[in-house]
Parts: sequence; C-alpha cells; structure tokens
Amino acid sequence: MKKIAVLLSGSGVFDGSEIHESVLTLLALSKLEVEYQCFAPNIEQMHVVNHLTGEVESGESRNVLVESARIARGEILPTDALLIEEFDALIIPGGFGAAKNLCNFATNGSDCEISPLVSEFVAEFATTNKPVGFICIAPIMIPRLYGEGVIATIGNDSETAQAFNLMGGCHQDAIVEDIVVDEKNKIVSTPAYMLAGNIAEASIGIEKLVKKVVEMV
Amino acid sequence: MKKIAVLLSGSGVFDGSEIHESVLTLLALSKLEVEYQCFAPNIEQMHVVNHLTGEVESGESRNVLVESARIARGEILPTDALLIEEFDALIIPGGFGAAKNLCNFATNGSDCEISPLVSEFVAEFATTNKPVGFICIAPIMIPRLYGEGVIATIGNDSETAQAFNLMGGCHQDAIVEDIVVDEKNKIVSTPAYMLAGNIAEASIGIEKLVKKVVEMV
Repeated sequence: MKKIAVLLSGSGVFDGSEIHESVLTLLALSKLEVEYQCFAPNIEQMHVVNHLTGEVESGESRNVLVESARIARGEILPTDALLIEEFDALIIPGGFGAAKNLCNFATNGSDCEISPLVSEFVAEFATTNKPVGFICIAPIMIPRLYGEGVIATIGNDSETAQAFNLMGGCHQDAIVEDIVVDEKNKIVSTPAYMLAGNIAEASIGIEKLVKKVVEMV
Repeated sequence: MKKIAVLLSGSGVFDGSEIHESVLTLLALSKLEVEYQCFAPNIEQMHVVNHLTGEVESGESRNVLVESARIARGEILPTDALLIEEFDALIIPGGFGAAKNLCNFATNGSDCEISPLVSEFVAEFATTNKPVGFICIAPIMIPRLYGEGVIATIGNDSETAQAFNLMGGCHQDAIVEDIVVDEKNKIVSTPAYMLAGNIAEASIGIEKLVKKVVEMV
C-alpha cells in the first residue's frame, strides 16, 4: 500500500492550512485507498487571526503542530520525525499558513525564506525523487525548494506569478480545475482556493492533483 | 435555489465540530449546487483541548463562533442572526463540540440540557417543519429538541443509545454507510465518526444524509 505524507501549517485559512483543501486532500487519498500521515513543523504560528473579524489577535500565540492536529484528528507527527523510507510522496495544502508559517512569503515576497524544518522535510522527498503536490499558495515555495526552472501554478494572480518567476520558477497560468505537472522534478500543483468560488470547484483540481501524485509514485 | 443552514460547534473533534464531517457536509451541499450558510452560537467553548496531546489546556478559552469561523472561511453568522424564512433545512455535524458546547451531554449524560441559543435556533426549523440532519454524536440532542418518540441513530454504541432512549428517543442501530430517517419529524441522522474507520467511510453516510435532507425540502 502506498503511503503519502501531508504537510500542514496550522488550522484555518487566514493563519494556517486551508481547512477545506486539507480535508479534500485526505478524502481523495482515502478514496484511493492510499494511507496517509499528517505532519507539521513544531513551531509557533506567525500570528493568530480571528477568523470571524479577520483581525490579528494581539497577545495570542498558537503552535503550528498543535493546531494542525485539529485537522488530523490528533494523528500527526512533527516534521523532524519523518522516516523518508516509509513514504512515497508528499502533498502540501494551501492557506495563508503556507505563506506565513512554512515560509515568510506573506511578509517578504520574493525575498522569502523557507522555515528550516520545512526545508529539511521537503528536501527529503526532493532528493529521493519522490513526487510532491503543492496546492493553492503552497507552490510559491517551489523555486526556493527546487531551484531554477521548476514549473508550477498558483492560478492566474499576476503579482504572485511574477514573484514566483522572480525566484527562478517558471509559472504557468491555470484554471481552478487544472493541474500543472513538472515531470522532471515530479511536482504537481493546482490553484484550489487561489481561484475556487466554492468547495465543489476546489475539490475538482485537488482530486486530480492527488490522483496524479499517487500515479507518479 | 435551496439554502441550508449548517450549525457548527467550534473547530476540532475533541472540543468543537469534527472538521472532516463539517467539510464533507459543505462539500456535499456544494456538489448538489445548494447554497449554505454556517452558523454557530456566540458562547465560550466548554474548554480547549490540545489536539496533539489530548489534554485540556487549563487557563485557555476560545469562543465557539470565532473558532467555527475557521471551518467557514470567515463566512459565518451567530445563531441569533437566523432569518428562518430564508432557509429550507439545517444540518448539524458532530464532534465533541456538539456534546460539550451545543449541549452538556459530555458531562451530564441523559440529564443534559441544550444550550439556550441552540435550542432556540433548532426550534425555528422544527416548528416550521423544515428537515434537520444530525451527524455523529449530534443526534443525542434530538429527544430534548423534539420530545418523545423521535427516531434517530448514533451508530451502535450501547451506552449512548441507552442515554438517547432514556431521554425519550427511539434509537435505531446503524452502520457507517447508513442514514436513519424519521419521516414524521423530518429528521435524518448518520453515525459518521461514531463508527467510521477513515474519512472515505464517513463521507458515504454524510453524502446520503445531505442528499436526503435536500430531497425532503
């Protein structure tokens, strides 16, 4: 049985993993009868956003691993517990957590750095040539993780696409139902809520991405 | 276009709405091209559970409405903002939040009381004969909300089923793929994670429940 790692970045679109995208990923894996294991870095969130008001809760702090555990129903491991030989592939859902906690793109744009724990974690898959799927805004990390010339999509937002290219990536516009595949680097990406108007739309691209990642194993 | 209310109880299986069940509900509604609006009571959670360790975080408090907003991507209303004439039906996902925040079954068992805001909210649907779907442990509230003789399932846990019957309900055992329908009261229920071994299993019963609730409108 194939086993896929899922890297989360908290729990909530504005400061963590986008919950719908994360659950849709787990659902697609489960429907394909593929085993999964959730991971998250054991670090503090950049900040906590009140999802009712959209405002930052000053003085509140939450841990990325602890909050991600909500999506994983408690079944989650810190990134540094990865035994790469047990896993066939990796999928990283989106949400602002990918741009705030996994890297600092939200504040630093194309000068962003990947969180060291995340960089080490993804490198384990990249260096062993195992496929990795990036959803929504998560592909913004790809140029930093893989170097020059990698192909991926963040949808069609020109500013984000430009930042992706500035970092050395080769952006391809895509619609919400699409996936973009970099066969050489075994990278799959899809826009999801970068473009989705509703959860049914997001599910189409995510299902395709999961299927493609599993096929590439 | 039909419009369905979804009542959440926080965000996380151990102290709020079960995230998978909630997202699967929204997904099924969206796939049926039914509009939905999430609601939650504007009250404090019973407590906050660290989902990594399973332990209660002493000294921490979170608001049910604010945390539920994470699942709803910010698009949520307090229960007392309901305009019943705009809605055709209601669905309540499970998670311990249903038994800790929407009512106090988790601590009081068959002596439980429904939170007043929740009681008023559900009564708006019950008294206008609009269908209501209850998922996982949420059906435990049904006897208190509807009175004697209502038919529903919480799966096959004998202790919980006994409590349901003690409160005046008429429990029917069910497997994870099943729904149980009380035609007279327009109530649909399904066990979901009371029994599901994985998210794909939970999705089968939830899809059936959503479809039935929408059909009953």
